[in-house]
Amino acid sequence: MVAQIDHNNVPAKALAVPARQMHTYTFDSLPLQYGGQLGPITLAYETWGTLNAAGDNAILITHALTGSSHAYDPEHPNDPKVAWWNPLIGEGRPFDTSRYFVVCSNILGGCYGSTGPSSLNPHTGQPYGMDFPVVTIHDMVNAQRKLIEHLGVNRLAMVAGGSIGGQQALEWAVTYPELVQKVAVVAATARLTAQAVAFSEVQRQAIMADPRWQGGTYAPGAGPGAGLAIARMLAMITYQSEESMEMRFARQPATRLTVSSPSGAADLGDRFDVEDYLYYQGYTLVRRFDANSYLYISRAMDLYDVSEGYPSMETALQRLRSKALFIGVRSDFLFPAVHVRRLAEQVRILGVDATYIELDSPHGHDAFLKEWKQMTDALHTII
Amino acid sequence: MVAQIDHNNVPAKALAVPARQMHTYTFDSLPLQYGGQLGPITLAYETWGTLNAAGDNAILITHALTGSSHAYDPEHPNDPKVAWWNPLIGEGRPFDTSRYFVVCSNILGGCYGSTGPSSLNPHTGQPYGMDFPVVTIHDMVNAQRKLIEHLGVNRLAMVAGGSIGGQQALEWAVTYPELVQKVAVVAATARLTAQAVAFSEVQRQAIMADPRWQGGTYAPGAGPGAGLAIARMLAMITYQSEESMEMRFARQPATRLTVSSPSGAADLGDRFDVEDYLYYQGYTLVRRFDANSYLYISRAMDLYDVSEGYPSMETALQRLRSKALFIGVRSDFLFPAVHVRRLAEQVRILGVDATYIELDSPHGHDAFLKEWKQMTDALHTII
Repeated sequence: MVAQIDHNNVPAKALAVPARQMHTYTFDSLPLQYGGQLGPITLAYETWGTLNAAGDNAILITHALTGSSHAYDPEHPNDPKVAWWNPLIGEGRPFDTSRYFVVCSNILGGCYGSTGPSSLNPHTGQPYGMDFPVVTIHDMVNAQRKLIEHLGVNRLAMVAGGSIGGQQALEWAVTYPELVQKVAVVAATARLTAQAVAFSEVQRQAIMADPRWQGGTYAPGAGPGAGLAIARMLAMITYQSEESMEMRFARQPATRLTVSSPSGAADLGDRFDVEDYLYYQGYTLVRRFDANSYLYISRAMDLYDVSEGYPSMETALQRLRSKALFIGVRSDFLFPAVHVRRLAEQVRILGVDATYIELDSPHGHDAFLKEWKQMTDALHTII
Repeated sequence: MVAQIDHNNVPAKALAVPARQMHTYTFDSLPLQYGGQLGPITLAYETWGTLNAAGDNAILITHALTGSSHAYDPEHPNDPKVAWWNPLIGEGRPFDTSRYFVVCSNILGGCYGSTGPSSLNPHTGQPYGMDFPVVTIHDMVNAQRKLIEHLGVNRLAMVAGGSIGGQQALEWAVTYPELVQKVAVVAATARLTAQAVAFSEVQRQAIMADPRWQGGTYAPGAGPGAGLAIARMLAMITYQSEESMEMRFARQPATRLTVSSPSGAADLGDRFDVEDYLYYQGYTLVRRFDANSYLYISRAMDLYDVSEGYPSMETALQRLRSKALFIGVRSDFLFPAVHVRRLAEQVRILGVDATYIELDSPHGHDAFLKEWKQMTDALHTII
């Protein structure tokens, strides 16, 4: 039996970040890359470990599209489902909290406590919605810089992140080379391919074509559930690989019919397991994520080009001073390994101490959230 | 300036098939693979060349998802935009109309003159909509068989098609080995991967989540334009490749802003050329194609498994008696070349005279509609 769950009326899940672990820092204003100012800005963040007197043992962890500051959960340190980089953080792990002061903040534009399109616009008292300005990876990094300064960090021992988090790590190292001792850019490239931009735009169109989107003015909890679920379905395909989906689903029929589809329409013939899985993934994202944040953050991903504002890619990359680790995934087709490797090679040619490690994983882009052993080994080469 | 074209209100384009070239054949009823009967059934078709007295020089051309019977246009034989396999058909070309009687029919479920969900249901006098039964590749082939018999064909010299057309060609050769002398299966496999099914389902959800879909009961010309345009955007990505999209679009900004997006929402930052291209592709499909036909035919593609109804894949494939040519495309990720090649090898091991040729093309799945020289050379190895 199909559980008749309406993707437009799903119960909101408790915020993925335990409130008692999350802090906030608010500052007045930030000049934006594409012009204008945004403020006040609040960043939600978490920290683990202790900052040393010199203020130079901090590691900044940067998250991906639908992530939050909750990279690590000291109370459940062995469950990757509770915090997204849990197995990599903590005593004896690459991001060793007994040696480092580890910081992770929800990005500008997000919906896990930081200022984003669902925040109240101080000029109107209403949520920003689409009046929120286009923010970029560069802006996200500048907001993080304010936070880092507020926390008393003088120099980052490392910045590390995957996917959009990897774009932030790269942007940190290029924009503030003097502040970043080491950088780990995981499953991220200097700029997206046309194909990846195209996949993103289909997702955004699915959200914005949902009449409940209402030009972005939907009330909290009344957003474009079907559109966001469809966007997530597509995103989940791009995070995996033909190989991993074949291993996991092949052509097995669905046996459980966990949820109804985003459209709510009846199945056309028997449902495949992979379809049921994607419906469920859509459903769970709708429970926990804001559709407008999805639009803004995915757009920041598309627009990112580390060379923007510089005369050339070479000019941008030769600013790097950090010891750099680039990690690609063999089966990633969103941020193809060949592009990650080429970026590492470009940087090395420019004189940077850069290493490239490829995860031998069938799990596609998602490998940076799954291949804990390989990720640990790779990160240990630089930390 | 953005032309303010509403994807839900686009002028219908004249039927892609010149009426004076198209014929129809109507028969009473067809038993369907998944049970029940459908009838009456009309197939729209075109023929070129002359059937010989023995009735054994016919070539059946089978079309892909949004195709029609108009594979060839004798009045514009050199323009591939006028008819979808134009450069391969005609005197001196692989499907030589001076030697062969070439037949192409719009598939069962289609919207170019054959019976499909937009046809009138004789029981209600209204379009079938979602009361149309799930039809399969097997059913499409059975309907074609009725047509072939009607035309006086005793044995097909060849069946050839790409993509869903390739599935039909394979199904013909397995179901009616005694009727098919040669077969060309292009950019098609024995069954879709989980990833390909997943891409399809996202497309269908985009259509069915559009409120104008109305459970499939929309009036002619008032269908789910935005949803169908989004589906087409995604499909177009899967028909190309990272490589070809990079060559064609890379990260170029859109300079023309040809049409508004399916959602009609304002651009979030500057529009990329690839986005503008995809909007336009969506728009043109909405002008010419029925959304419900899209649902049914794409579902038939997903459901297709040549081994269905047989104890094993081997049992199914060893029925083949036709001389077989399998053509894969190096850069195709919807029907990956490796799977086409494996299918050819499986068939050869079972004793069939089978050849595999791989198109060395960056154009992905679409190569079977673009690489005329390579396609011609490949087909000449069997014809």
